[in-house]
Amino acid sequence: MTNKKQLENLASLIRYYILLSTTKAGSGHPTSSLSATDLMVTLMFAGFFRFDLDKPGHPNNDRLIFSKGHASPLFYSLYAAAGKVSQREMLSLRKFGSRLEGHPTLAFSYTEAATGSLGQGLSIGVGMALNAKYIDKSLYRTFVLLGDSEMSEGSQWEAIQIAAHYKLNNLIGILDVNRLGQRGETMYGHDIDAYAKRISAFGWETILVKGGHSYPEITSAYEKALASKGKPVMIIAKTIKGKGVSFLEDKDGWHGKALAEEELKEALEELGEIDFSVRGEIAKPQKVLISKQELKSKTEGIKYPKDQPVATRKAYGNALVRIFPKFPDMVVLDAEVSNSTFSQNFKKAYPERFFEMFIAEQNMTGVALGFSRRGRIPFASTFAAFWTRAFDQIRMSQYSEANIKFVGSHAGVSIGEDGPSQMGLEDIAMFRTILGSVVLYPCDAVSTEKLVEEAAKHKGIVYLRTTRKDTPILYESRDEFSIGGSKILRKNQNDAVTLVAAGITVFEALKAYEELQKEGIWVRVIDLYSIKPPDIAALKKAAKDTKTIITVEDHFAEGGLGEAVASALSESNTPVYMLAVRKIPKSGKPEELLDYEEISKTAIVKRIKEILS
Amino acid sequence: MTNKKQLENLASLIRYYILLSTTKAGSGHPTSSLSATDLMVTLMFAGFFRFDLDKPGHPNNDRLIFSKGHASPLFYSLYAAAGKVSQREMLSLRKFGSRLEGHPTLAFSYTEAATGSLGQGLSIGVGMALNAKYIDKSLYRTFVLLGDSEMSEGSQWEAIQIAAHYKLNNLIGILDVNRLGQRGETMYGHDIDAYAKRISAFGWETILVKGGHSYPEITSAYEKALASKGKPVMIIAKTIKGKGVSFLEDKDGWHGKALAEEELKEALEELGEIDFSVRGEIAKPQKVLISKQELKSKTEGIKYPKDQPVATRKAYGNALVRIFPKFPDMVVLDAEVSNSTFSQNFKKAYPERFFEMFIAEQNMTGVALGFSRRGRIPFASTFAAFWTRAFDQIRMSQYSEANIKFVGSHAGVSIGEDGPSQMGLEDIAMFRTILGSVVLYPCDAVSTEKLVEEAAKHKGIVYLRTTRKDTPILYESRDEFSIGGSKILRKNQNDAVTLVAAGITVFEALKAYEELQKEGIWVRVIDLYSIKPPDIAALKKAAKDTKTIITVEDHFAEGGLGEAVASALSESNTPVYMLAVRKIPKSGKPEELLDYEEISKTAIVKRIKEILS
Repeated sequence: MTNKKQLENLASLIRYYILLSTTKAGSGHPTSSLSATDLMVTLMFAGFFRFDLDKPGHPNNDRLIFSKGHASPLFYSLYAAAGKVSQREMLSLRKFGSRLEGHPTLAFSYTEAATGSLGQGLSIGVGMALNAKYIDKSLYRTFVLLGDSEMSEGSQWEAIQIAAHYKLNNLIGILDVNRLGQRGETMYGHDIDAYAKRISAFGWETILVKGGHSYPEITSAYEKALASKGKPVMIIAKTIKGKGVSFLEDKDGWHGKALAEEELKEALEELGEIDFSVRGEIAKPQKVLISKQELKSKTEGIKYPKDQPVATRKAYGNALVRIFPKFPDMVVLDAEVSNSTFSQNFKKAYPERFFEMFIAEQNMTGVALGFSRRGRIPFASTFAAFWTRAFDQIRMSQYSEANIKFVGSHAGVSIGEDGPSQMGLEDIAMFRTILGSVVLYPCDAVSTEKLVEEAAKHKGIVYLRTTRKDTPILYESRDEFSIGGSKILRKNQNDAVTLVAAGITVFEALKAYEELQKEGIWVRVIDLYSIKPPDIAALKKAAKDTKTIITVEDHFAEGGLGEAVASALSESNTPVYMLAVRKIPKSGKPEELLDYEEISKTAIVKRIKEILS
Repeated sequence: MTNKKQLENLASLIRYYILLSTTKAGSGHPTSSLSATDLMVTLMFAGFFRFDLDKPGHPNNDRLIFSKGHASPLFYSLYAAAGKVSQREMLSLRKFGSRLEGHPTLAFSYTEAATGSLGQGLSIGVGMALNAKYIDKSLYRTFVLLGDSEMSEGSQWEAIQIAAHYKLNNLIGILDVNRLGQRGETMYGHDIDAYAKRISAFGWETILVKGGHSYPEITSAYEKALASKGKPVMIIAKTIKGKGVSFLEDKDGWHGKALAEEELKEALEELGEIDFSVRGEIAKPQKVLISKQELKSKTEGIKYPKDQPVATRKAYGNALVRIFPKFPDMVVLDAEVSNSTFSQNFKKAYPERFFEMFIAEQNMTGVALGFSRRGRIPFASTFAAFWTRAFDQIRMSQYSEANIKFVGSHAGVSIGEDGPSQMGLEDIAMFRTILGSVVLYPCDAVSTEKLVEEAAKHKGIVYLRTTRKDTPILYESRDEFSIGGSKILRKNQNDAVTLVAAGITVFEALKAYEELQKEGIWVRVIDLYSIKPPDIAALKKAAKDTKTIITVEDHFAEGGLGEAVASALSESNTPVYMLAVRKIPKSGKPEELLDYEEISKTAIVKRIKEILS
């Protein structure tokens, strides 16, 4: 174990790196780093944190998440003090190509998850702690460094309540109460009791550290924290922003600002002599092996009688149960609507792999990311509309190479009577923005089953959109579906126009085909179940053959199927006509609403006749 | 004042309407309505709620928001019991064209704000209460009916903390703890103390009602609540889901389910004889007039010297101060980054109209909606990236005819060193999905000033995107900018291609123009500062003149400027080539990142040469 003097030397070295690297970068957050330095030095080098630096992937390594990602100079400096980042590399902070980015990203191999959008780290930590306690049965602990400003994000309280609900005594938050936010004082300033009162009300153990720069106090707090039984623990430490440099300490106006060269000189003088040879040692993780769990297979094939319509959301539930034995890393999360999304099927079959997340979509996404980072394959479901709640977490997860399967049910106006608040009409646009994401929207139970399996196989972010009402079975169990694929449902050498649909509108397209065909108008019909990536070859072929494309979707016009197709064909000369939801929807029967929004058979027939006239 | 017997008769009539209307609709949430019936009957008809039913717009009317919007059958029934909805209309519930939609919308004139996505009503209430206390200085109170399930949404705790911060003793929450969520028991079941502990820890007065169906208990709770000094109040009532119908009471599996005809018959028998003639009276609002505040004008003109680059975010701050005297209904909100978004300029000039919302974007959006519903013009700002946090609230605000100006600073990779977590790269796509929204992205200080004013004039949802770094002054103070407009910056009869840019990329486009022109390649350059609605006429003219369009944007490819242009021109035969952010961004200098993402001058020149070759 490192003694107090060594800890002090390590802290001085780290403060030196923090100040030097940010000044060299010309930007960054030195003061937010300095406030948490002593908390982190003690955690890492006084024997509490257990981690094999040479094996970042060791399953029993403790996890450390900097939820206050702007303290990245401290984060990187800790590993410099541990001998894993050179001083030279420290000076590459924030420079193009450096793995030391402005906020932690996976470019740096010790980053557990990219942070920087505040109020997200604790949820990710909950996911990792759930994995340790309930799946891996590993002894690793998850530590999350939190800023006081970010405690105003509601997502924190979602994470706090769920951590208590699941009795995560392997989760330890460290709240750095340095009083100052970006533009001034936080809501509670230095009142650490205010935080303790709120957090303990939610069922956490709270440990107050009045001297957030005193090693004995901090050490004693960690000792207590590690002994907690049955409760997550929050260490709440009163610290000083800019600690260690007199003209920065507790001063407003120094957030996110690097020191000028002259100021740096003065600051470094205050730090005194630095022992550049000091290196912190980190305790090693437990060697206990994680026991592989035996899984009972409950597999059945895909069987949907052609004459019995089934909602794709039900097929999703069935698919989860069916594929689990093939993908034993699966976990399933739901935001208190498992009886609507049909993830309840999985819950019944494999209760130990289902986690109820209650109505808190932001935290659910963070938890999914935590699971994903620990090698699981999370499927998370709620109503399509409510995924908008978690857009920031979804956005951030792309920077952590997330392998998450998002599933949104109750898509579009076709849900009917519940009205606009429950209708997912921007979900495709939202998930399409994510780099490298896959967006799938099957129309029948068979293609849903197949695509759920494709989603599980695919490494990365997948969004699957399901439909509330029963839809006819269109496909055979032997049909194949792939990411980036499509199905041509109707084709004729005389096709005058190509109709591209997905999900519920596939059936409207087929009805329109029937009607038009009676009048001698031939229409190619494509089921573009993979909206991203789209089947560009099939679209280009159709564009070439029929000269005109018309899209029809149960989604707002912007960013949806129509724009995906227009975008895929934008460099060619093919006109693309788009039918989409363009009026504030109402309550009503699905058919009435499809008509009202002009995305029904009738609207398609009308539009095609207009185009061809 | 209505006596107990009358209240009971009113409650019976309301229960009758709830059951009948949902069965006739074939769907809806009768049990969630029945649990809150006695709480609401007492509020409205025992003299607590003050509202002139013939003047819903009366400024001193109390406000009532059903945050648990699925209890809409109760909501409408209250007004039926007050004589404002006929039994015949009650039977139109959830039918196409009825103003009684599945969840409350503005189609019904007593709806304060559309709800149905849980965990949003309290924030809207905070906005209304802030307006009453700090702006109107009106005595109206704001009541919010909350469900227990929705308390797991983090946004609730954002609203709770901010209401305490602003000492909103004119805000009264009524928490209907009926134990059961959609798919089973909530996290805390019937433990009303669990809620009290958490809510009071945040600085609210909490009043427990153990018998949520007892009129004396409920009455006494309201009496206490109205007497609160300096604190918001939460009435926490233990209720029974399905109360009044024995086979529904406290039973799982009855969420969101209407009774079958046979069950209805049985249920109505249990209700006993209904007095169809009973009508509830609602107390009238105070007649006190709201005093108009005197505003000191601090107006200055728009003056930006041509040789001094200014960031558009700074121009935004300047514009707020400049236009306020013309738009005295303005209020300005910011999520703790006012020194970055430059809303701090307004804060300094008009502190009484600036509300610090701390880092809680969801609540900020709800508060903005509350202000908007009370006739204010809220401007709300944060980093563009962090607006994704509030997508669900933004989405819902469109159903409340919101007049909100959203402003996102630090857009795109051009922010540089802070890295991807801070880069708004999906904000345009997000705001474009909102029906009827306006999306503006000015490139210089002058156009920003003009467009902020246009935004204030426009009734509806406007998103304004600003840039972190200083950009040259391109325009003259006399230039005009309009929603749906554009500026042709370079034009020649030999133009071989049209280059469409907005914001930061306008300058890359101009640099590309210079370089290409030297080689004899003429390019039309359009500043498409109004991305939605786009200037279709200018785009079509350019398409006709130059045959080819190329777009360049500091935003992900999906749903942004490129797709907006492709979409506007999709029915024509013009190829549109899109340059956009297509790789995970890094930290680095703005110029390095523009190059890396291939949206810089160099990339534009290269692409145009490829296209023309």
